[in-house]
Amino acid sequence: MSRYCLYYWPQIPGRGEFVRLAFARAKVAFSEVNDISTLQQLTSPQEGKTGVPPHLAVPILEVQNGANRFYLSQTPAILHYLAPKLGLDGEQPGVDPEVTRSQVLQLALTGLDWAVEAHDVHHPIGVMLYYEEQKDEALRAAQAFRSERIPKFAKTCRLLGTKTSIADLVLFQVLEGLHFAFPHAMEKLASSTPQLGQFRRELSDELRAYLESPERRAFNDGLFRHYPELDPP
Amino acid sequence: MSRYCLYYWPQIPGRGEFVRLAFARAKVAFSEVNDISTLQQLTSPQEGKTGVPPHLAVPILEVQNGANRFYLSQTPAILHYLAPKLGLDGEQPGVDPEVTRSQVLQLALTGLDWAVEAHDVHHPIGVMLYYEEQKDEALRAAQAFRSERIPKFAKTCRLLGTKTSIADLVLFQVLEGLHFAFPHAMEKLASSTPQLGQFRRELSDELRAYLESPERRAFNDGLFRHYPELDPP
Repeated sequence: MSRYCLYYWPQIPGRGEFVRLAFARAKVAFSEVNDISTLQQLTSPQEGKTGVPPHLAVPILEVQNGANRFYLSQTPAILHYLAPKLGLDGEQPGVDPEVTRSQVLQLALTGLDWAVEAHDVHHPIGVMLYYEEQKDEALRAAQAFRSERIPKFAKTCRLLGTKTSIADLVLFQVLEGLHFAFPHAMEKLASSTPQLGQFRRELSDELRAYLESPERRAFNDGLFRHYPELDPP
Repeated sequence: MSRYCLYYWPQIPGRGEFVRLAFARAKVAFSEVNDISTLQQLTSPQEGKTGVPPHLAVPILEVQNGANRFYLSQTPAILHYLAPKLGLDGEQPGVDPEVTRSQVLQLALTGLDWAVEAHDVHHPIGVMLYYEEQKDEALRAAQAFRSERIPKFAKTCRLLGTKTSIADLVLFQVLEGLHFAFPHAMEKLASSTPQLGQFRRELSDELRAYLESPERRAFNDGLFRHYPELDPP
């Protein structure tokens, strides 16, 4: 029996939320550390210390198995590691489970790419500058994102069997975030993609207890941000 | 014995090169298809066809095991699937191989993030516009990338044991690409990071036969691009 601890920023859902959804769906307990000085320590490169891969950023998952303990970062790597342990590795009749697991990783990566593109809309120049410093560029990026990229990504959906996987959880969270950040663009998309609406309702049901709990973090100032000027009616 | 086929754009090294390096390092044969109409067909969503995950983009790997055949996209998923089959899954004394494999995936993802950031420097507004249409923004993005992001990413290096893994191959290709795109910035970095220079020499030796072959694709117009104005002396 493993013990899990998630290290992530306080308040924002961000990339940590994808990991939280996995534990919530599996009803597996985990602890969380949001203390910023601890996070900074974990993401400071430990020069010359082999065997400890450097962590570029949170989320970081700490896994304790008896006397063994290790840390893992990068959201797709964390989700892929957890998937079989939490029963979220997907299932396809007659298909080698290793192949299914790789395909689930593929779909999770695509969902996370979508989230990164949504983020880059409001930070087209770079993450070191505030939105207000790159607003003109963001207006242009948002136009391209709404007209080209949202419809393209929207064709990715729950396609691997009927068992909820980490890829489904990623897609669900991205769709929730996009509805928050680009409500008008997503509303326009809804009529041509009814399967996405059904998918959101199914996953909302599966995750209801968590989504209605105080642990669920509201979208605010992270990956998905709502700037009305970036999503005109 | 599996048969492998890589589907990728013609000419550019791009993300396909990470997969090519894995086969080259393992000395395992594979075929490659660069025909654009075939690529477009593979990345066109097949609506309603369950069991076939949609592919957002190439590279796509086709794997044939006897009568079974499947397709896998997303570079990290392809590399992670191939790693144990090609002996590129890394090795750490006394560490559970599954943990090592997850940590190798983590490092590969970080290297690929670096490549994406290098790409976004010359396309800060979006991939649908030409560089020339977003050059002012690119100048600002390049300044931030050179001063903040290159030094931060450079602290990620070959830290897991001594066996070459997919993460090492990713880091090698990214460093080669950065030396092509940002020669001055990388030169400035060299004195403070001698281990990166040694790493590049080691990997160049391991991959020499391939790097000197006509199959090796030169950097030109893909992820890594050299615009002198984005890398002043």
